[in-house]
Amino acid sequence: MNPLEQKKFAPIGHKRWAIPEGYIPPTSHGPEPEMTSHETICVLNVSDQDAHLQVWIFYGDQEPVGPYELLVPARRTRHIRFNDLDDPAPIPRGIEFASIIESDLPIIVQHTRLDSRQAENALISTIAYADTESVM
Amino acid sequence: MNPLEQKKFAPIGHKRWAIPEGYIPPTSHGPEPEMTSHETICVLNVSDQDAHLQVWIFYGDQEPVGPYELLVPARRTRHIRFNDLDDPAPIPRGIEFASIIESDLPIIVQHTRLDSRQAENALISTIAYADTESVM
Amino acid sequence: MNPLEQKKFAPIGHKRWAIPEGYIPPTSHGPEPEMTSHETICVLNVSDQDAHLQVWIFYGDQEPVGPYELLVPARRTRHIRFNDLDDPAPIPRGIEFASIIESDLPIIVQHTRLDSRQAENALISTIAYADTESVM
Amino acid sequence: MNPLEQKKFAPIGHKRWAIPEGYIPPTSHGPEPEMTSHETICVLNVSDQDAHLQVWIFYGDQEPVGPYELLVPARRTRHIRFNDLDDPAPIPRGIEFASIIESDLPIIVQHTRLDSRQAENALISTIAYADTESVM
Repeated sequence: MNPLEQKKFAPIGHKRWAIPEGYIPPTSHGPEPEMTSHETICVLNVSDQDAHLQVWIFYGDQEPVGPYELLVPARRTRHIRFNDLDDPAPIPRGIEFASIIESDLPIIVQHTRLDSRQAENALISTIAYADTESVM
Repeated sequence: MNPLEQKKFAPIGHKRWAIPEGYIPPTSHGPEPEMTSHETICVLNVSDQDAHLQVWIFYGDQEPVGPYELLVPARRTRHIRFNDLDDPAPIPRGIEFASIIESDLPIIVQHTRLDSRQAENALISTIAYADTESVM
Repeated sequence: MNPLEQKKFAPIGHKRWAIPEGYIPPTSHGPEPEMTSHETICVLNVSDQDAHLQVWIFYGDQEPVGPYELLVPARRTRHIRFNDLDDPAPIPRGIEFASIIESDLPIIVQHTRLDSRQAENALISTIAYADTESVM
Repeated sequence: MNPLEQKKFAPIGHKRWAIPEGYIPPTSHGPEPEMTSHETICVLNVSDQDAHLQVWIFYGDQEPVGPYELLVPARRTRHIRFNDLDDPAPIPRGIEFASIIESDLPIIVQHTRLDSRQAENALISTIAYADTESVM
C-alpha cells in the first residue's frame, strides 16, 4: 500500500486521561532493558496529525511537576516509560505518584508496569481513566 | 434445550475497540502451546448473526498494517492470538504495537497477555477501550 | 450501629455485564482451596434488596449454556468461582469461554483469575464490561 | 515554579466509586513493608481543594462497616492500603470484601493488590468502577 492509499481512520479516544497508580520499583532482575522494572504509558494516535501531549506528575507530599512534553506521530503508537522522563525533572524511584495526560487530539492510553524486583516478573495493565467530559 | 428453544440475547457491546498496549514476547518457557508467550484478544458476540471483524495493527515507526479479517460466529466467543495473525503480514516478535478492532456488529473485547519469558508466568488482562461514539 | 440505623446506599452499577475472557486452568499448585486455579466474578450489591442473577456461558464451538441462577443478598458482596457452577452443567477445564451476567438490580462486577499452574501464582483482574444501555 | 504560578487543573473524575474485589492475603514473603501483601486504593485529586472521602466495606455475611474517613489533599495522590484502615474497625485478613468510595469532590480511583503469599509476587490493577450518575 503506498502512502496515497493509506486508510484514513475515524477519530477515537479522548483528550484527557488519568492514572492514579504510579510507582517505579527501585530495583530490577534480568537482562537490560527489557527486564528493567518500568512503568509505561502506551498511547495510540490513529489520526492523520501528530498529537502533542503534556504529562503532569502528582505526588503525595509536593506540588505537581510538569509539563512533560511528548509527541505521538500521526497513525503511530508510542510506549513511553516514566523511567525515561527527565524534563523538567526525573521521577524518583520507589515513590508513589499519579499522572494526568493531556493531548491536543483524541488518543487512547493504557497503563502497564513490569515489576522485576524479584526473580520472576509481575505485570499489571489497565486502560487509563478517560475524561469523557473532554471535548472531542 | 434444542436449537429452536435457544435464548435470544439482547445486543451488547460496541463496534469499535482499541488496545494501545501490544507486545509479543520473543521467548517462552513451558509446554506448548498453552505456555507459549502470547497476546490475545478475547471477543464475545452474543447476537444471532456472525460478526465480521477488521483488525489494524499500529507501530512506532511504520504505517499501520491491515486489515486482518476475522469472523466471530453468532452466539460464540473467540480468543484470538496476535501470534497467529499472518494475512496481510505476521506481527514481529519483541516489537511494541497497538491495535484497532472494527466489527459490523456490537461485540465486547478483552485484552490478555501471558508472558512466559521467565520460569514463572505473568498475566495481564483488561477490557479494551470501547469507542462509545460508534453507533450501535 | 444497630440494624435500624443501617445506612441506606444510593443505587450504583448496571444490570448487564459481560466478560469475554474465561478459562479455568486444568491444573494447580499449592494448598487447597486458596491456591486452586480459579476464575472468579466478584459481585457487589449495595441495595436493600437481594439481587437475582442469571449467568450465561458462551463457548467457541457450541451453543451458550445457562442460565446459572445466583443470589447476591442485600448489602453484600459475593465472590463466585466459575469452578463451582454446576447447574445446568459444570464448565469444562482448559477450555476458553466468555460470560454474560444479568441481574434484576444494579450490581457491579469485577473479573479475577488466579492461575497456579506453575509454582508461583499469576493474577489478573479487571472491572467487567458494563452494558450502559441497560436501564437502571 | 512558585505557589502563585501553580497550574490550575480542570476537574476530572467522579464522586462515587466501587471495587467489588477485595482480599488481604493473610501471609507475605519478602522485606517489610514494600513486599507485605496488600490491597490498595490509589486516589488522585487534581483540584485546588482537599477531598474528603468516606469508604464503606461490604462483606459476604455481615452488614457493611464504615465510614472510614480519609483525606486526599489538593493536587495530591494518596495510595491507601486497606491493611491500614482501623477506624471504625480493622479489615480481617483472608476474608473476601468489596468497597464503595464516596468523595465530596471528583477524584479518580485505581485498585491494586500485591500478593506475596508465595516467593514471587503477583500484582493486579484496574481502574475502579466509576458511578457516572454521580453529579460532578
